[in-house]
Amino acid sequence: MTRIALDAMGGDFAPEQVVIGAVEAATGLSDVKVLLVGQLAPIQAELDKLPKALKNAAQEAMVKGTMEIVHAPDVAGMDESPVDAIKKKKDCSINVAMRLVKEGRADAFVSAGNSGAVATSAILNLGRIAGVKRPAIATVLPTSDQSRPILVLDAGANMDCHPEWLVQFAKMGDAYSKAVLKCATPAVGLLSIGTEDCKGNEMTKETFPLLKKCQDLNFVGNIEGKDLFKGHIDVAVCDGFVGNVVLKTTESIAKAIVHRLKDECVRNPLRIFGALVLKGAFKALKKQLDPDVYGGAPLLGVPGAVIIAHGSSSHKAIFYAVKAGVAAATNDVSGMIAKSIAEDAEDQKQK
Amino acid sequence: MTRIALDAMGGDFAPEQVVIGAVEAATGLSDVKVLLVGQLAPIQAELDKLPKALKNAAQEAMVKGTMEIVHAPDVAGMDESPVDAIKKKKDCSINVAMRLVKEGRADAFVSAGNSGAVATSAILNLGRIAGVKRPAIATVLPTSDQSRPILVLDAGANMDCHPEWLVQFAKMGDAYSKAVLKCATPAVGLLSIGTEDCKGNEMTKETFPLLKKCQDLNFVGNIEGKDLFKGHIDVAVCDGFVGNVVLKTTESIAKAIVHRLKDECVRNPLRIFGALVLKGAFKALKKQLDPDVYGGAPLLGVPGAVIIAHGSSSHKAIFYAVKAGVAAATNDVSGMIAKSIAEDAEDQKQK
Repeated sequence: MTRIALDAMGGDFAPEQVVIGAVEAATGLSDVKVLLVGQLAPIQAELDKLPKALKNAAQEAMVKGTMEIVHAPDVAGMDESPVDAIKKKKDCSINVAMRLVKEGRADAFVSAGNSGAVATSAILNLGRIAGVKRPAIATVLPTSDQSRPILVLDAGANMDCHPEWLVQFAKMGDAYSKAVLKCATPAVGLLSIGTEDCKGNEMTKETFPLLKKCQDLNFVGNIEGKDLFKGHIDVAVCDGFVGNVVLKTTESIAKAIVHRLKDECVRNPLRIFGALVLKGAFKALKKQLDPDVYGGAPLLGVPGAVIIAHGSSSHKAIFYAVKAGVAAATNDVSGMIAKSIAEDAEDQKQK
Repeated sequence: MTRIALDAMGGDFAPEQVVIGAVEAATGLSDVKVLLVGQLAPIQAELDKLPKALKNAAQEAMVKGTMEIVHAPDVAGMDESPVDAIKKKKDCSINVAMRLVKEGRADAFVSAGNSGAVATSAILNLGRIAGVKRPAIATVLPTSDQSRPILVLDAGANMDCHPEWLVQFAKMGDAYSKAVLKCATPAVGLLSIGTEDCKGNEMTKETFPLLKKCQDLNFVGNIEGKDLFKGHIDVAVCDGFVGNVVLKTTESIAKAIVHRLKDECVRNPLRIFGALVLKGAFKALKKQLDPDVYGGAPLLGVPGAVIIAHGSSSHKAIFYAVKAGVAAATNDVSGMIAKSIAEDAEDQKQK
């Protein structure tokens, strides 16, 4: 049974949506146990508020042992400085949940709290995988090819990066793509402003030759923003500033397009009729683009499965983030990264 | 009459699409004269190949004097190093067209050629507006609000930027937004990874207080990728690496969404019927998102109206780029930028 330490207090809609998502995961996923970590009183209040069917499901899960509440007296607020909150409040839900992983009492950590707070807690409590310079947040995004999503990293953990860090991001992304996304030979691209080898800023220009030397990677060279969603790249490497901007831009443009499409579809009765006929198609598209489904972003480079969900996570996003936690834990992503980075260190030594 | 020096040889589909776009602009826009600059023989060959109606229109335009061919013996290839090509080939179409602007024989320059080549030629031939550190490429993008597009700059002219350059980008974007997009008080945002003042990378963190001090700007603070297309920001400032990645990502995600929507709409006969009913809505959406319409990106900071069209410009994109050239010239964008930057220098002196 895979045990997930889920931060009940993190996220814009916590604890409500987290509690619902927890119950759904504890009852809907097989061989999974959810450890709901947070202040007992608000969690209990949310459980009491649940509609009858869900309340029964929650009780059943607790009796069966697929859901358990772990008390954490403190909460790290979204508005506090993440580093300060984590350091000051030793027993906030994020720290308590992270310690469950450290102590081997949970196999993965999931939170929709502040990503800086989660990263800080992960590094403080779990440390880093030997040889890893900087852990990175990896995000899975849908592409034109439904069967081939893309992993973009770093998506926001490190702002000003050194070329060596980006090389490690590539290796960590490669490991995740192989282990979780089941991509046999991930095509790894360096996000830049042109596909020519010489294009880019100072950092990417220095990173390019380092990646080219990595014989264990299928490095396909520089890629552009327009290559991200074509479905021919599996891992896109960039610094956390660029990755975060790209990620949020992607969400934004998708929403803007859907917004405009809606506007056009209600412009006259005939169109409303056409839109009704196409309801299934629109629903399917929405589902494919649903950020909730892609919402769980693994923090790679720490010795443990740590998943950061979107701050505005709904219960569905929480459910999928728990699923991502299960996938990261059962496929031993950390172990694969540790191996890849250790081999690298070995190679360096021999040279 | 506004005279546009149009590079006939620049772009993936030049000279064919440029020649068609030139004829359409010369006949479709009022009070505009197109100076088609390039090698006579291939331009003439394209004109000969035109369908009858367009050929007649071209002849009429040349008789009326709204189109003229200006011979340029050389061509700067898309694959050459842009700086080298411009420096070596004094009489390539880009240089010849740029000199028409310099010599006052044209009011604006338009090219779908290599943006680096155009920027180099502009700086070599026209110089920079007094006080401008670095010219920047500005791109107009559609948002959720059809009446409020957003200007993003720098979109690719400068990779590694200093904070002072970004402040000037903000001022230049502000001037363009006011002059051409007719925005009375543009909301200027600094593209970052969070809206809090302290969020960002080293460069944006240094830029933030400088922008905050600019009393002539309506600086609204840090914005995120997700704010770009909401329709509440008029000018987004970033370095050319980030801007270029955002721009190309935007194009890419829009295409991926349309691709998936199409897939869904042909999945069964009922959906095909629904899609036929909604044909008008889809067409309207496509038109709104059409990158061709937004394709002409002004190079701001040089003393003259210089428009860079997308490398893969169709004749329609060329038409709209010519239109952007007319707008930049008739609204004296360069003059407004010169004034804004000069005032700034004056302020600095008085301090």
